[in-house]
Amino acid sequence: MPSGRHFLQIPGPSNVPDRILRAMDRAVTDHRGPNFAEIGGKALEGMREIFGTRERVVIYPASGTGAWEAALANTMSPGDRVLMYETGHFAALWARLAGKLGLDAQVIKGDWRSGADAAAIGAALSEDRSGRIKAVCVVHNETSTGAVSDIAAVRAAMDAAGHPALLMVDTISSLASVPYAHDEWGVDVSISGSQKGLMLPPGLSFNAISKKAEAAAGSAALPRSYWDWEEMKGPNETGYFPYTPATNLLYALNEAIDMLREEGLEAVFARHRRHAAATRAAVEAWGLEVLCAVPADRSPVLTAVMMPQGQSADDFRAVTLKHYDMSLGNGLSKVADRVFRIGHLGDFNDLMLCGTLAGVEMGLRDAGVRHRPGGLAAAMDMLAPARRQAAEGRPEEHTEVQAAQ
Amino acid sequence: MPSGRHFLQIPGPSNVPDRILRAMDRAVTDHRGPNFAEIGGKALEGMREIFGTRERVVIYPASGTGAWEAALANTMSPGDRVLMYETGHFAALWARLAGKLGLDAQVIKGDWRSGADAAAIGAALSEDRSGRIKAVCVVHNETSTGAVSDIAAVRAAMDAAGHPALLMVDTISSLASVPYAHDEWGVDVSISGSQKGLMLPPGLSFNAISKKAEAAAGSAALPRSYWDWEEMKGPNETGYFPYTPATNLLYALNEAIDMLREEGLEAVFARHRRHAAATRAAVEAWGLEVLCAVPADRSPVLTAVMMPQGQSADDFRAVTLKHYDMSLGNGLSKVADRVFRIGHLGDFNDLMLCGTLAGVEMGLRDAGVRHRPGGLAAAMDMLAPARRQAAEGRPEEHTEVQAAQ
Amino acid sequence: MPSGRHFLQIPGPSNVPDRILRAMDRAVTDHRGPNFAEIGGKALEGMREIFGTRERVVIYPASGTGAWEAALANTMSPGDRVLMYETGHFAALWARLAGKLGLDAQVIKGDWRSGADAAAIGAALSEDRSGRIKAVCVVHNETSTGAVSDIAAVRAAMDAAGHPALLMVDTISSLASVPYAHDEWGVDVSISGSQKGLMLPPGLSFNAISKKAEAAAGSAALPRSYWDWEEMKGPNETGYFPYTPATNLLYALNEAIDMLREEGLEAVFARHRRHAAATRAAVEAWGLEVLCAVPADRSPVLTAVMMPQGQSADDFRAVTLKHYDMSLGNGLSKVADRVFRIGHLGDFNDLMLCGTLAGVEMGLRDAGVRHRPGGLAAAMDMLAPARRQAAEGRPEEHTEVQAAQ
Amino acid sequence: MPSGRHFLQIPGPSNVPDRILRAMDRAVTDHRGPNFAEIGGKALEGMREIFGTRERVVIYPASGTGAWEAALANTMSPGDRVLMYETGHFAALWARLAGKLGLDAQVIKGDWRSGADAAAIGAALSEDRSGRIKAVCVVHNETSTGAVSDIAAVRAAMDAAGHPALLMVDTISSLASVPYAHDEWGVDVSISGSQKGLMLPPGLSFNAISKKAEAAAGSAALPRSYWDWEEMKGPNETGYFPYTPATNLLYALNEAIDMLREEGLEAVFARHRRHAAATRAAVEAWGLEVLCAVPADRSPVLTAVMMPQGQSADDFRAVTLKHYDMSLGNGLSKVADRVFRIGHLGDFNDLMLCGTLAGVEMGLRDAGVRHRPGGLAAAMDMLAPARRQAAEGRPEEHTEVQAAQ
Repeated sequence: MPSGRHFLQIPGPSNVPDRILRAMDRAVTDHRGPNFAEIGGKALEGMREIFGTRERVVIYPASGTGAWEAALANTMSPGDRVLMYETGHFAALWARLAGKLGLDAQVIKGDWRSGADAAAIGAALSEDRSGRIKAVCVVHNETSTGAVSDIAAVRAAMDAAGHPALLMVDTISSLASVPYAHDEWGVDVSISGSQKGLMLPPGLSFNAISKKAEAAAGSAALPRSYWDWEEMKGPNETGYFPYTPATNLLYALNEAIDMLREEGLEAVFARHRRHAAATRAAVEAWGLEVLCAVPADRSPVLTAVMMPQGQSADDFRAVTLKHYDMSLGNGLSKVADRVFRIGHLGDFNDLMLCGTLAGVEMGLRDAGVRHRPGGLAAAMDMLAPARRQAAEGRPEEHTEVQAAQ
Repeated sequence: MPSGRHFLQIPGPSNVPDRILRAMDRAVTDHRGPNFAEIGGKALEGMREIFGTRERVVIYPASGTGAWEAALANTMSPGDRVLMYETGHFAALWARLAGKLGLDAQVIKGDWRSGADAAAIGAALSEDRSGRIKAVCVVHNETSTGAVSDIAAVRAAMDAAGHPALLMVDTISSLASVPYAHDEWGVDVSISGSQKGLMLPPGLSFNAISKKAEAAAGSAALPRSYWDWEEMKGPNETGYFPYTPATNLLYALNEAIDMLREEGLEAVFARHRRHAAATRAAVEAWGLEVLCAVPADRSPVLTAVMMPQGQSADDFRAVTLKHYDMSLGNGLSKVADRVFRIGHLGDFNDLMLCGTLAGVEMGLRDAGVRHRPGGLAAAMDMLAPARRQAAEGRPEEHTEVQAAQ
Repeated sequence: MPSGRHFLQIPGPSNVPDRILRAMDRAVTDHRGPNFAEIGGKALEGMREIFGTRERVVIYPASGTGAWEAALANTMSPGDRVLMYETGHFAALWARLAGKLGLDAQVIKGDWRSGADAAAIGAALSEDRSGRIKAVCVVHNETSTGAVSDIAAVRAAMDAAGHPALLMVDTISSLASVPYAHDEWGVDVSISGSQKGLMLPPGLSFNAISKKAEAAAGSAALPRSYWDWEEMKGPNETGYFPYTPATNLLYALNEAIDMLREEGLEAVFARHRRHAAATRAAVEAWGLEVLCAVPADRSPVLTAVMMPQGQSADDFRAVTLKHYDMSLGNGLSKVADRVFRIGHLGDFNDLMLCGTLAGVEMGLRDAGVRHRPGGLAAAMDMLAPARRQAAEGRPEEHTEVQAAQ
Repeated sequence: MPSGRHFLQIPGPSNVPDRILRAMDRAVTDHRGPNFAEIGGKALEGMREIFGTRERVVIYPASGTGAWEAALANTMSPGDRVLMYETGHFAALWARLAGKLGLDAQVIKGDWRSGADAAAIGAALSEDRSGRIKAVCVVHNETSTGAVSDIAAVRAAMDAAGHPALLMVDTISSLASVPYAHDEWGVDVSISGSQKGLMLPPGLSFNAISKKAEAAAGSAALPRSYWDWEEMKGPNETGYFPYTPATNLLYALNEAIDMLREEGLEAVFARHRRHAAATRAAVEAWGLEVLCAVPADRSPVLTAVMMPQGQSADDFRAVTLKHYDMSLGNGLSKVADRVFRIGHLGDFNDLMLCGTLAGVEMGLRDAGVRHRPGGLAAAMDMLAPARRQAAEGRPEEHTEVQAAQ
């Protein structure tokens, strides 16, 4: 029986704050009663704010995978081609899912070490003279590699190609951690989940839907019922749902919305950037390599670290779990056992990060992984001045932390 | 601000016991870590026990509606005919869902005042010389009417007709409240949800799957990914899931499994029967009519009560909510405003039932509904001897409560 | 393992509402840190409001017994005489405590069936020509008998006698359930506890202190340290405490203060009166006798019921616990096994009361106690019109419920 | 609104684990009902185990200060002399309390930088030819200085002096963190509280009582009622209490007892020693001085650190709170603003300690405190090998961590 608090430093589910756990620990209410309207209405409105949209948002009692399926099932017809950029494991899974739904997934293979290449997407669209491609699907923050894709650039490439495909973006592990702008970026369907930046347990997922996507749904022929946006429409207008919603997770969501508003989304984003910069300073000091090779694409949410040649990431992770009661993320698929992933997202702070990096550094030592000491010290060198400046009222944006990004 | 505890006497979600709320109020764990196997394994094994099956059970982060969809999506191909017995609103919704998935739903219309007519099902199957019907779909406990269908009789009728269709049963509002036997009754797909007899908040749903259904899935052509049983198979074998499960609801489920084992399923069933009998004694004494016209089909889970001619059930329900802070179930669809429904399921006891019936009786009076007083007194006349006998160690099965059923 | 919610219908601890349990379920904070001032300050200020005083209130991590001791230890010197009115068991215990502290307790014996006799107190004071009596001690709501004493009348009798003794009042089981006015009634020390009308678990107790009592403390010679008001003074001024406070119970207290403000103290008092009136209507209908023989003194908080001659209250209580999972209060000391007590206080509502009375009525039947049926029906006859009138906006004060008192 | 978890690193109240918070978040039960016996009995029995005694333990709803008072009030008579060793602020407060109770406190002044000097105690007793000293009072772990006193040595000195005084030991901040043996060490009254090693919120305190102390209580003349051991005796024998106990804190205590049994007291003690050794390694590396000047006396529970000459500990603490959301303990009384105290007790682990020390190190930097970097690195150098050895099954007792003590 380990004492003290487990360090859950996988890149999601993230550590659920007590306020949210307590919000769930409440009596269920009648989801058709008069009091429910406020609960449902707040959740829907709050999610619009977080997605950066004035359009519709729908909430599913489902994992993020379900929201991927919903995005496609509502807008596509059997055999439709979707252009998918494989930034990593989760993008690949989404492509596989498209195939299982009977779609024709045209995959642009990435190197799993960077965000999506907007130019490559533009080129593929330009080649699609016959307009077979109905949607472009991109993962905003690829959780398996720690690389962020530039969605505005993808939108610009699509516009430059003059292609009418819908733009679908998986923001499951970036929403409420990394700036996101559904309307401004011209995204047609945004997909997200509850257990990352929203700080909830898993069990809710989301679609934000542009008017264009909604219009596409009118003629899309894939069968759908549970995921059907249309069914949601009427009830959602007054804060209700067409089937029994996951009430207690909605309580939790509303508490998360309050917490995000209290801290302020901009402050939340800056915090994630600061922790990411400090983590990367640690990785560099250890002499290890960050999987994401393009500095500008490195994720504020997690850092995937490459193991020295010939050493096992999973053995290392077993040591950090056994010795320090800390869970780190594993390498998935192509990078299995080759990388470990440090989650630094959600309800998190400087000292939790220091504890996390201490666990990594001691774990590297215990597991005999080749590295230089001093990673945590390097992270502290970055965190302390940032805090000092913030305390002095100097905007964090202008500090060396920012520069380090 | 009302004081005291709200009486949530809709027929689900049921009142969630504190033990289960507290079980959810716990840190999320790594769903791919070594400790998770025990959590997932216990949930899957416990659900097998509750369904009465040695076959596979799958658990979805989804509402019950999703599990309906899963049952069909895994076993059917576009255009397949399904024979559905319309016991009430939920059976009708299921048929509508089948239609949306591209299936051909052949509906036997019931009178919404009884369980499914096994003979009618047998007759329809006998007429299906060409074997177009691929599945028979029945709702075990129709939540909109309070009528239970005799699944063993349906199975017998199917066997008598020598028809190879799959038998699918919605046990969403009966599981863990009414005896159920997936294997013994020869059910191919059982569908359930978390927020009724399992005493959880909404957010989980289930399929129990016979070998025959699993074989059917091998050739079924409806597209599926989120609902795909096959994806679950490998991970489930060791207690894991193919995508992020709703961890905290699984904690809750495991607590519910413990609670059901402690009380004992037979005792749980007897308790539901006793409360149903007492409720019907009250309704009779009030001079009101139970919607379910066939005594043998009346549900242990809820009682739908018909309003006197010309009086509004919804006005009455508004009064019980306003005056007594009690939520009752509304009449749905064909019986909207004509019936109200009293839930007496889940984590419930004699005095909670008495409080509930007191609220109904005082509400009838306050709302000016034509009735005779004395309903609660009649219920108490039934409850007290039952308790006395139970306390004396005489098995409750042999008491007049039982006889009253 | 009983299912459903236990009915804790003893006259305190009362049922703790979920909001308060959840408020306790929070991380402890630094009781000397800057954030604590608000927590402590709110608790102290809120308690002043509830006691009806602009003077000091002190909060002890202790049971109510401790606050009795505090009242005496701060104001008395060894050998001082205190005049105590024995309304019942708790008043007798307080007198015993005074004796253990070395005080000379002059006890006026009451009949245990009514509140304190102000005239008798006045007479005793008038006889005390030498001014030996330093304090008059009265229990506002005698929890063992269900009798309320008229504190304003006691004050008037003291004034009429022109006696300078301090007036000390135990409002442990009445505060926040029955109107109380420390300042207006000229009370010098009010004593209370957390686990009754304040709806908290046990563990906090209180003194409200008049300027006269504080002056008396200046020369009082009983040794004291933990209970010393003087130690509290400085720290309390800024919301702090001289020793580690029971932080999580203070969280709970602050939640209770919010709840009482939301409902409004007047509404809380009216609710308690209504439930008491309904309970007494039930007792009368059962043909049983209320222990408190003076209608005007009957408590809004609890009703002590006398058993028919020769029948055991404890046997009856064992039956309600075993058959209906309901705890009733036992008879204490002189009335042991002769009465049972029904608590109808705190976080409570009409349907919880109906469930409670149903449990009593069925228990009477099961235990073979001589009684007439129809008690609950009589209570419902009283509750329903009250609700109807309240819903119509007619002030509850003017209804027959009020008249029935 | 800070994000993430607050670091409450004062030397008590310690961080309350979720299991214990959840245990409190439960319905109150009837403290006179049949089910309570098990709750009370387990708490009393568990505390005996933790105190290392087969004698009686009493539990008060009170802070630790109350248990100090109880120890004296039960065994002393007015004017009795008590010999008190002033190890620091809390010992001084205890002496002050003795004075307020009318006792004659003979204080041996310590230097506030070490544990009690058993020889000095022995000498004082030897000089007490007339046997005026009735009790020797020692603080086991002086929370204001971080010094542990050798109780066995004090006992030996008392025995060598052949003096019959009672031995009273304050183990408020050491119990369940530092080995303690009430019976073996011949302690007559042990005093403790809930909010340190027991991991509970504040609100409970304890006395463990030798037969000799109980005999002394028979003739002790200080007035007492709330604290009276005798009142507890009868009810405690069957698991009950003479007045309403703090039920929900008893739930919490029983959970703590389970947790301590699961981890094992020896493992708990070793963990505290390891964290203390690592903390002192950090302090040394920073070039700062530990307040406790005698290495053998340094506390496993907390480390008090002296500020460089002319620098303010409180300014530094304000910085760690503002920049890193971490509460450190302040210097009390004689060492106010001269020391800060790091709590490393209770529900704690290696990574929480690393986060704590990171916060101290960054805070020292931010606040401009003269120090050398590298403290946390030194702590990690100590923690990592300890973990490695523990994982290899080598008993932690034999490692360099132990040696460092």
